[in-house]
Amino acid sequence: MKKIVVDAYGGDYAPLEIVEGAILAIKKHKDIKILLCGKKEEIEKILNGRNERIEILEASQVITNDDVPTEAIRHKKDSSLVKAYDILKENEDVIGLVSAGSTGAVLAGAIMKIGRIKGISRPALAPILPTKKDNDVIIIDSGANVDCKPINLLHFALMGSAYYSIIYNCESPRVALLNNGAEEEKGNELAKEAHKLLKDAPINFIGNKEGRDFMSGDIDVMVADGFAGNALLKGSEGAVMAVMSVLKKSIKSHFFSMIGALFMKKTFKEIKARIDILSKHGGSPLLGCKKLVVKNHGSCKRNNILSSIEQTIILYDNKLNEKIEKAITLLNDPESV
Amino acid sequence: MKKIVVDAYGGDYAPLEIVEGAILAIKKHKDIKILLCGKKEEIEKILNGRNERIEILEASQVITNDDVPTEAIRHKKDSSLVKAYDILKENEDVIGLVSAGSTGAVLAGAIMKIGRIKGISRPALAPILPTKKDNDVIIIDSGANVDCKPINLLHFALMGSAYYSIIYNCESPRVALLNNGAEEEKGNELAKEAHKLLKDAPINFIGNKEGRDFMSGDIDVMVADGFAGNALLKGSEGAVMAVMSVLKKSIKSHFFSMIGALFMKKTFKEIKARIDILSKHGGSPLLGCKKLVVKNHGSCKRNNILSSIEQTIILYDNKLNEKIEKAITLLNDPESV
Repeated sequence: MKKIVVDAYGGDYAPLEIVEGAILAIKKHKDIKILLCGKKEEIEKILNGRNERIEILEASQVITNDDVPTEAIRHKKDSSLVKAYDILKENEDVIGLVSAGSTGAVLAGAIMKIGRIKGISRPALAPILPTKKDNDVIIIDSGANVDCKPINLLHFALMGSAYYSIIYNCESPRVALLNNGAEEEKGNELAKEAHKLLKDAPINFIGNKEGRDFMSGDIDVMVADGFAGNALLKGSEGAVMAVMSVLKKSIKSHFFSMIGALFMKKTFKEIKARIDILSKHGGSPLLGCKKLVVKNHGSCKRNNILSSIEQTIILYDNKLNEKIEKAITLLNDPESV
Repeated sequence: MKKIVVDAYGGDYAPLEIVEGAILAIKKHKDIKILLCGKKEEIEKILNGRNERIEILEASQVITNDDVPTEAIRHKKDSSLVKAYDILKENEDVIGLVSAGSTGAVLAGAIMKIGRIKGISRPALAPILPTKKDNDVIIIDSGANVDCKPINLLHFALMGSAYYSIIYNCESPRVALLNNGAEEEKGNELAKEAHKLLKDAPINFIGNKEGRDFMSGDIDVMVADGFAGNALLKGSEGAVMAVMSVLKKSIKSHFFSMIGALFMKKTFKEIKARIDILSKHGGSPLLGCKKLVVKNHGSCKRNNILSSIEQTIILYDNKLNEKIEKAITLLNDPESV
């Protein structure tokens, strides 16, 4: 039976929403077991007897956003996250970890406790966003690595491509490099060098793309350093929210628009569902670690936790890490395959 | 009489829209004269006798996006842009230049022909975007400088603050640093060092802000290196367009939504006007040059040219460059003022 360890004390709505998310997953998937790390007594109260295939592992401490990540992993040995990482590391049948805790701590824990896949220079976060078409786009890296070298971006591209191909069952995802222009010679020093590496990599590289193209539907995997990637990701999210907010305000201030909005319920529902894509896919995996780690947004609710657990199962069943290993081997020795 | 030189052969709709924009400006402002650089015969045809306070300066060549900027400035001596820069440089009564040509060439021309304000390390582009509130936000730099040092970002902050204070008549604009988190110690090496400089600068620095906050209305001037700034700017633009596109598609596919949309005309008009902010403000000034240079979007029409000419007048009348000079003096010698 596959086991997944869940940090019950990470996120704004922990432990309630995390525990409820685990219960949803258990109900839906009969072949998994969930290990919840956190304060046993509180978790038991929430479970209230619904503990079939759920095991609680006592952890008295909590890592917060105020903690310095590496120090927290080193010193808060009895925290829910560190305990979860210990369990992930020590048990072969534990296939992955889900946490909605501090991004920095989840990242530090992954590197310090689990380690990188051989050949991968840096693990990276690859969240999903909707596009204006029906397909989705991922951005890698979205903030785990704010200072990057060209080789890091090459590895992001390989990992992002492998990940996208699994979750969308797509053989050859279109990989683009975030740049300030489409021309090959465009970009900062990092992008220029990365472009050269991506051109020769065993991926479907479609060249430089601008931030403007991110949600066009013409890109599957956008590769960027974590700083610019974070700006693009959060800028896009913020802009979508801004438009929705302006729309709402304007509707409220015109009588006829309010009438119109009533007729448009279906449209608004459709848009909301499209924007709320994270509920569907759960959090963002931290790609490139020896075991699966899925990081959820701090504000996530039970459905997001369910999705993250499901994503862990899908990535495990479809051998994500083996695919990444294969890609890196192929990169380093093209004749090996 | 103030003179403004306009590159009549820059932009997708040149020369027609550029020349028509100049005519609009002449009609509206009785105290200016426009110098149009480009192919005399063609421009005269468009003017068709409407040449009051408009002078044409023959330039037979055109710089395109395919030209290497510095080479084009050096070798296409008879191009409309180089001619325009020559005129701007040589005539004291020519207060500024407007072009919708290649960004790289406009930038290269400004540096090579006009030069920087003393003490300013790099000129920068500062386009305006709407926010979800009633105020607007500028981002500096948005792509003129893709590899930056901390001192560049400090100068961007000073220039952006001076510019924003003029166009919005606002004494102390809120200046933020683009970062991947709000905490002081967040960011890549560049952002961390820039944060220290901005903290001590003679501006209203409100700290690190994420891309998500860009259109929140709580920031007036967002400071970033040109690469991340470009990702943020274009990502935001792209996201807004994506939402509008999804909205449109959804409306078209539901009968009731189509009815609703008819009722919502006022709302859609309001949103369109808010998004189309560039028509109001014209292009983006290239801040930090010895003379005023306003760069328009390549796809701009006559109204944008009009706005850019008007922006040049406003920035001149309100002594933008003197304000920037004063800020840089104050920065280097706090006791001088």
